Amino acid sequence: MSEIYNGMWQRLGLNLEAHHELLKTLGVFYSDIYLSQKDRPKAMEYFDFVMSEVHGLRIQELQEAKANGRRVIGTFCVFVPEELILAVDGVCIGLCAGAEVGIYQAEQYLPRNTCSLIKSFFGFKLAGLCPFTNSCDLVIGETTCDGKKKAYEIFGGFQPVYVMEVPQTKSEAAHRLYESEVVRLKDHLEAVSGKKITVKALNQAIRLVNRRRRGLQRLNRLRFASPAPVSGLDALLVNQVAFYDDPVRVTEAIERLCDEIEDRIKANQGVKPVGAKRILVSGCPMAIPNWKIPMIVEQAGAVIVGEESCVGERHTKNTVKEDLTDLNDILHAIARRYMQIDCATFTPNEERMDHIIELVRKTEAQGVIHYAIQFCQPYTIEAKRVEERLRLEGIQYLRIETDYSLQDLEALKTRIEAFLETL
Amino acid sequence: MSEIYNGMWQRLGLNLEAHHELLKTLGVFYSDIYLSQKDRPKAMEYFDFVMSEVHGLRIQELQEAKANGRRVIGTFCVFVPEELILAVDGVCIGLCAGAEVGIYQAEQYLPRNTCSLIKSFFGFKLAGLCPFTNSCDLVIGETTCDGKKKAYEIFGGFQPVYVMEVPQTKSEAAHRLYESEVVRLKDHLEAVSGKKITVKALNQAIRLVNRRRRGLQRLNRLRFASPAPVSGLDALLVNQVAFYDDPVRVTEAIERLCDEIEDRIKANQGVKPVGAKRILVSGCPMAIPNWKIPMIVEQAGAVIVGEESCVGERHTKNTVKEDLTDLNDILHAIARRYMQIDCATFTPNEERMDHIIELVRKTEAQGVIHYAIQFCQPYTIEAKRVEERLRLEGIQYLRIETDYSLQDLEALKTRIEAFLETL
Repeated sequence: MSEIYNGMWQRLGLNLEAHHELLKTLGVFYSDIYLSQKDRPKAMEYFDFVMSEVHGLRIQELQEAKANGRRVIGTFCVFVPEELILAVDGVCIGLCAGAEVGIYQAEQYLPRNTCSLIKSFFGFKLAGLCPFTNSCDLVIGETTCDGKKKAYEIFGGFQPVYVMEVPQTKSEAAHRLYESEVVRLKDHLEAVSGKKITVKALNQAIRLVNRRRRGLQRLNRLRFASPAPVSGLDALLVNQVAFYDDPVRVTEAIERLCDEIEDRIKANQGVKPVGAKRILVSGCPMAIPNWKIPMIVEQAGAVIVGEESCVGERHTKNTVKEDLTDLNDILHAIARRYMQIDCATFTPNEERMDHIIELVRKTEAQGVIHYAIQFCQPYTIEAKRVEERLRLEGIQYLRIETDYSLQDLEALKTRIEAFLETL
Repeated sequence: MSEIYNGMWQRLGLNLEAHHELLKTLGVFYSDIYLSQKDRPKAMEYFDFVMSEVHGLRIQELQEAKANGRRVIGTFCVFVPEELILAVDGVCIGLCAGAEVGIYQAEQYLPRNTCSLIKSFFGFKLAGLCPFTNSCDLVIGETTCDGKKKAYEIFGGFQPVYVMEVPQTKSEAAHRLYESEVVRLKDHLEAVSGKKITVKALNQAIRLVNRRRRGLQRLNRLRFASPAPVSGLDALLVNQVAFYDDPVRVTEAIERLCDEIEDRIKANQGVKPVGAKRILVSGCPMAIPNWKIPMIVEQAGAVIVGEESCVGERHTKNTVKEDLTDLNDILHAIARRYMQIDCATFTPNEERMDHIIELVRKTEAQGVIHYAIQFCQPYTIEAKRVEERLRLEGIQYLRIETDYSLQDLEALKTRIEAFLETL
């Protein structure tokens, strides 16, 4: 990335030297994993460009937005309703981090036995490597898992953090709790932005976010085709970029990509041959640049046809009811939509099992790789339930627990390649 | 323990041989740690007796209660209101387990990175070693931590489990959620027992549980004296036994113990010399026979003067309002009392920090040992906040993270003895 951003990065408090090294490494990593893929849709060029400017142009846009009085709001979880942020003309940025960075600094504050995702967002902050976090006027956390819930208390010592409570069951009382939290967040965002949320602005935001969701849903549906018209790596990247790119622009890019993929399907054109093993990945989110598992799977000749994950299907599968005319009704509809998310932090969470089976059928996946970040208790424990259900349905299953390091790369390759051979 | 219980244990589905070995080991362990203590209050003999019959007489009582139509209800957490169980004439049994038992079996169902407490209650069950669990008509779980929350889903495959939701903040909405869960639990217990909860029965239960709490509060206050009139090991044991012994009988035993301790204080009689280092232990619960830390501390010549823990002060410090006349008001009062518990699963949890400082002042502790079970995210992460607060107040602090094994015994001894020398 060009040195033209050095001034901006310095103003954002980054460690320029370490940041330069990070971008260099990320560039090589991206080139090796992404640009080396064959027969990619041409519309992926947009996403390559976004990635090449991930800490540059997009960060510059955030500074411009801030200069124009807009608030930049960071989130870590698909339970934070982006619609509310957009309705106060805020910019919503996903902050989840996917690289093993600043671990030493993070472990000054967090137990070593903390999941990589949490350590990474601390590490990026503490090592001065994340221009997104440092651009935020506010970070919105939630109580989904114990690790994040308690880590936000410490993170609040570094920059303003607001935490919304997400319940742990789906009882009516739990729905009421979450809805009251949606209202509380609305009030807080109004206070932070100095802007009142109107029915019009909120409906506009809902339509925009729904449109992006529908684009990603369409992308997911197109992946049901055989031969697979797009790689799992590319589909994951699109989902990842959707978290921090401008929502209008990225939606248009997703729609262009889908148009092109439809043409490819008509032309029977795939990224892998028809016989390539089809895999569904299920479990924890994969934040940029956490591409380890899909890289191994696809470099071994298989293709990932779906992500049952927060960075994937779990994030996009439901929409919010549009064009309601009463603000309370709209807030209620938002709360109901978000409470449909089948995150492993809920108990019971049988709908996730049902959904995985449904996805296996639709994508015609031959096997499921359950991916959990080490020390993520909700997903590592729920993995047993997933396993039982898949066994019952006669679906092949591989359970992986790993972190962000590349130390287990060879071991994972061996296990994944052996799994693919059994399919 | 006598072989006279073999028939009962067999009927309960225990693995007799392994169970025999467990009791033998536990007996030696208890004798080494407890009976070797000098100058114990005579009233501790009751607790020695209870321990010697822990899997015998008490289990026989449970079978008799069941034969008389009473339900035996197991719980794992201080958020389950015992008052409701007693109000349907149920027997409430704390099931938390403190020994490294059945780990191999437990790890067939749970990730290796699960805390010892959870692995232990699975292990006891799966290895056929827990006559308490096997006596239960119902086990009541809760959503306090991710580990237990998700583990109950699997545990439900072995015996009936009911889960109540505990919120994660202390907002008014969270209070309402918990109160609705108290009402739901009441309805469920009525259905399970076939008994309607009356105002009279519930008030009686409240008075009984409050009386036991006041007994334990009194015991805690008596420990403020110098020289320490009772060991931390013995005080912990009293708190542990209170979870599964008959509540009337154990309360009387606690009161007799307190009477005797008052006499000791008047006579200036201590279990350790006046100069013995005074330690507050803060953090995770210690279930029977998890006596590793207090054993090391007290065998090194120091004395534990308080437990800021669920098996200790956190469990007993607040009482429920007595003699209300409306059932809804009583349920509300119960909910309010339980929501005062300052468990690390809440965010924020500043009242716990305040309370630790208050306890240090009252007990005149010279240092705090923060004890967390490895992989317990709420307490291991909150430990940092505790550390910051104690440093601010100039209070010495040692942070320990360990499991139920004895493999780190020598390392812990070295660290704890070094810490004691600094005080």
